[in-house]
Amino acid sequence: MNWNEIYETAKAWTLEAGEILRNATKETVKVEYKTSAADLVTQKDKEIEQFFIDRIATNYPEHFLLGEEGLASDQEYDPNQEIVWIVDPIDGTTNFVHQKRNFAISVGIYEFGNPKIGFVYDPVADELFHAQVGQGAYLNNQLLPRLPQKTLEEANISINQLWLVPNRYVDYTIFTSMIQKARGTRYIGSAALEIAYVASGRLDTYIDFRLSSWDIAGGMVILGEVDGLMKTVDDKDIDVFSPGITYFSNKHVLDEVYQNVNKK
Amino acid sequence: MNWNEIYETAKAWTLEAGEILRNATKETVKVEYKTSAADLVTQKDKEIEQFFIDRIATNYPEHFLLGEEGLASDQEYDPNQEIVWIVDPIDGTTNFVHQKRNFAISVGIYEFGNPKIGFVYDPVADELFHAQVGQGAYLNNQLLPRLPQKTLEEANISINQLWLVPNRYVDYTIFTSMIQKARGTRYIGSAALEIAYVASGRLDTYIDFRLSSWDIAGGMVILGEVDGLMKTVDDKDIDVFSPGITYFSNKHVLDEVYQNVNKK
Repeated sequence: MNWNEIYETAKAWTLEAGEILRNATKETVKVEYKTSAADLVTQKDKEIEQFFIDRIATNYPEHFLLGEEGLASDQEYDPNQEIVWIVDPIDGTTNFVHQKRNFAISVGIYEFGNPKIGFVYDPVADELFHAQVGQGAYLNNQLLPRLPQKTLEEANISINQLWLVPNRYVDYTIFTSMIQKARGTRYIGSAALEIAYVASGRLDTYIDFRLSSWDIAGGMVILGEVDGLMKTVDDKDIDVFSPGITYFSNKHVLDEVYQNVNKK
Repeated sequence: MNWNEIYETAKAWTLEAGEILRNATKETVKVEYKTSAADLVTQKDKEIEQFFIDRIATNYPEHFLLGEEGLASDQEYDPNQEIVWIVDPIDGTTNFVHQKRNFAISVGIYEFGNPKIGFVYDPVADELFHAQVGQGAYLNNQLLPRLPQKTLEEANISINQLWLVPNRYVDYTIFTSMIQKARGTRYIGSAALEIAYVASGRLDTYIDFRLSSWDIAGGMVILGEVDGLMKTVDDKDIDVFSPGITYFSNKHVLDEVYQNVNKK
């Protein structure tokens, strides 16, 4: 398998797809709703997913695609036996519609369930976060350093405000101490970007629930290359195909985050 | 008073100051701490405030400056009797340091306590939100439309996660219903940008506490020009010189926000 060639090809496709989205921010966007008023999808989500399906079918017919829009969901395969491209055509669709910024294309390529290549591309800022396992992570052409020593008091934590009020998924009171101690809190609304921001030190921990494979597959490759930690709330490794409750973090901060969570 | 001339001059200075900050994002930034590890200030905050002090002293010696860094705090005046430039040299200093993005210069010019001119400039995105009272608000050269009809279910709410956990300033449980009903929640970490984002429809309501005059003075002029509403938690108009607990909102959403807050 020529992974360098796949890396360069996937990078070129990601940038090309990003240009389509960057141009789309200048047009009026047609929005549909999936399961609720908070679950948006646009024609562009489908167009970008189809773009990857078509290119992969032509160039790598033996690879599979797992995408948010499910346009290739007739494919049957065991992800632990195959090479799978895990694609979120627009991660942060609500931002794409409302802000025309702060969204990303996320692409993670996994071989037999193991991370190989990751891209998170913010086309409006023209920032490509990218990594090939074992070769370091980059923001555009700049190598990202390993994440530095830091304390929670110096950390910026990203967490959806929904998890801080009563909800069906988690005891919302467990985060109180962590929020109170952190330097700051943020929430962008794009899982792929929050993970890429942790990898580049713009954020220090990102905590979320109900994430899907395509939200995190690209970012996990990138964060792994800067010595970041990805753990579940139970201190287990994250399975990209079944994420659960997940912490993406500067590893130096994560112990202190854990100490300040679940102390009930 | 030639307000058009002041507007053009202030705009040119704001863009020039923004260029200094945009260049500074490429350098290593020296950070000091004011009252706590969460209260950052950099040499650039002081440099930009001094930039405005010097220019105003030379060009408008009869005007006053109220700035976050307090470098002109030896000035004595009644803001209701004078023209005051209310300047935040870097709104979102933590973002400036950690993210090198998502910060802004905020400039509001008030005559006898009344809003006249406002600027919020994001130098990294090169987005200048600007307004002169009665002449509409602009994002760069584009006129911002009046904010459209919308429901809370379609709204994106910005609120600091700190106000959703036990804190000294507000009963944190009052926001539960609002958060649960909104389409989405966000928090950028720059009051000036959140207000400008409400003015441009990227966010629909921004709620915050403990804001200072310089965080909001520029944004208030801009939001007023698109028919946005700025209210305190008690449904009173915001006094820019004594903000209190503040809501900056699409006016169509604000009634519904109020209905979902304080329902204990």
